[in-house]
Amino acid sequence: MPELRKDPVVGRWVIISTERSRRPTNFLPVSHEKSGDFCPFCRGHEDKTPPEVWAYRPDGGAANTPGWQVRVVPNKFPALQIEGSLDRRGEGHYDKMNGVGAHEVVIESPEHGADLAELPVEHLEKVLVAYRERCLDLHRDKRFRYVLIFKNQGPAAGATLEHTHTQLIATPIIPQILQEELAGSRSYFELKERCIFCDMVQQETDENNGKRVVNLTDHFLAIEPFAPRFPFETWILPRNHRASFPNMSDTHEVRDLAVILKDTLQRLNRALDRPPYNFVIHTAPVSEGDVDYYHWHLEIMPKLTRVAGFEIGSGFYINPTPPEDAAQYLREIARD
Amino acid sequence: MPELRKDPVVGRWVIISTERSRRPTNFLPVSHEKSGDFCPFCRGHEDKTPPEVWAYRPDGGAANTPGWQVRVVPNKFPALQIEGSLDRRGEGHYDKMNGVGAHEVVIESPEHGADLAELPVEHLEKVLVAYRERCLDLHRDKRFRYVLIFKNQGPAAGATLEHTHTQLIATPIIPQILQEELAGSRSYFELKERCIFCDMVQQETDENNGKRVVNLTDHFLAIEPFAPRFPFETWILPRNHRASFPNMSDTHEVRDLAVILKDTLQRLNRALDRPPYNFVIHTAPVSEGDVDYYHWHLEIMPKLTRVAGFEIGSGFYINPTPPEDAAQYLREIARD
Repeated sequence: MPELRKDPVVGRWVIISTERSRRPTNFLPVSHEKSGDFCPFCRGHEDKTPPEVWAYRPDGGAANTPGWQVRVVPNKFPALQIEGSLDRRGEGHYDKMNGVGAHEVVIESPEHGADLAELPVEHLEKVLVAYRERCLDLHRDKRFRYVLIFKNQGPAAGATLEHTHTQLIATPIIPQILQEELAGSRSYFELKERCIFCDMVQQETDENNGKRVVNLTDHFLAIEPFAPRFPFETWILPRNHRASFPNMSDTHEVRDLAVILKDTLQRLNRALDRPPYNFVIHTAPVSEGDVDYYHWHLEIMPKLTRVAGFEIGSGFYINPTPPEDAAQYLREIARD
Repeated sequence: MPELRKDPVVGRWVIISTERSRRPTNFLPVSHEKSGDFCPFCRGHEDKTPPEVWAYRPDGGAANTPGWQVRVVPNKFPALQIEGSLDRRGEGHYDKMNGVGAHEVVIESPEHGADLAELPVEHLEKVLVAYRERCLDLHRDKRFRYVLIFKNQGPAAGATLEHTHTQLIATPIIPQILQEELAGSRSYFELKERCIFCDMVQQETDENNGKRVVNLTDHFLAIEPFAPRFPFETWILPRNHRASFPNMSDTHEVRDLAVILKDTLQRLNRALDRPPYNFVIHTAPVSEGDVDYYHWHLEIMPKLTRVAGFEIGSGFYINPTPPEDAAQYLREIARD
């Protein structure tokens, strides 16, 4: 059973994998699969993954057989384990608990070479529905306080399988960056009685501004944020106040999100020659629901620079590309 | 002039380099120098760096000529600029200021192939004295609130020059991770009237414990921390309460730190086959001085795994090596 342990000074939880402990000699460079290697995510290999927990099958068909367009399965090598109780306990003045959680994989397409940015909008919409449905289901488990949805695209961004996929990890604690965002937006709300993200949307779309806007749809806004950690870091936010991603039930909104996500990823792919990237969805925690003070959003972080000692040691990032310049490149790339 | 910008939600400052903006085509993989390339840090190339601000010359000699063993120069491509005022200002509801600061390089040896871990203890001691003296000098500039000392060893850890060196960046704000450590240790002190790091040292060296101890000298302790983010993350802490690194004036302590740092880096080099790594010194800020609640320490982070979307998006780390196992490997490596 993995363990969750808390740093006593800053309160940051980490997952310590106690079962598959890696010895010094296990840290040789990871060899990534080559094209032609067997892929468990491809159509026809449904029996090579744990049984599916959700799938989109437009023409029906039995579970764990071909015919799906989007398929969600438990991760075969989960970071956290689904069985068991948390068993919170101390060790001297330290705190720990069992590494209980869920770890699932959203296989975005049955085609090995598919790219999320190039899927038809209708297909991408079903990927987003998969995210939402799995969140809603995992939220029913009272042991979990957060569901993090994230994607690693390309080996340099940490992807170990090439076949396009997203991951969900349900955790019994609220991860540190989310705690910070929640605390920051809660204090702002106490001071101003307004959502800080709504204010951000308002300022970024002001008619005299727009210099950090990448694109805009009826319901969503894509911007380069004012203080990005990484070059070409791009956020997609609902234009109206929405705290919870999985509570998005309006089908127009889901479709609109698919449109802006596709457009944004395509712009990044064209501007940066299909860069490795990570994206992550930040949403209000399970227990909080549709709060006034928080606003869900999706953060895309292309992996273009190397994070070194200054950043790791201080949390202070050096970004060589002003967001205003990045936004301009991304706006203009559409004209090509 | 670079700009410091603050994320309005979490309060994290970033440095935006507005002068050498990197366009999309500039993010091709960085080509590192090859052996045989010209190195500005080598003996005899003193005129290829900005003029030195400190040097250790055991046999005397003029500044910016050979004869030094340790040499400190301003970074030729600084992340922050030394001239100017902060000029704090708003942009709508956002906050920014000028990117004023100091960025220096400690060249640890005149030999191109030197390795910090293999320098004689007496030489390593002078490297530590260089860190301290530059900190004390930069602390006199009232614009600076923090001096971060960090090292990138190896290209994978972000080093762009092979010749062994450490960097100092003096910043007009307290970087985020330090703010978190200071806040956490301050609350603990308010509750317990004890330093949390002193409690950690006590628990780790308790006679019934010791499972996370790597090594121990009269004045210092090297441990694998209870909740490490990275495999083989190793901390060196003073065994007695010491808040400020640059206030370390006792020559026995400086010598002892050189001994334990050398021993620890040698163990990591042997266990992990000279891994790329970062290290960073966390100390009380300039203005705080010798406070009761904080305790300086050095954090060494070998670069063995790839940080991916989960970690970047949530601040929640998955560590495949329990610190107790890592400590055992590092203790036993000395027997080879």
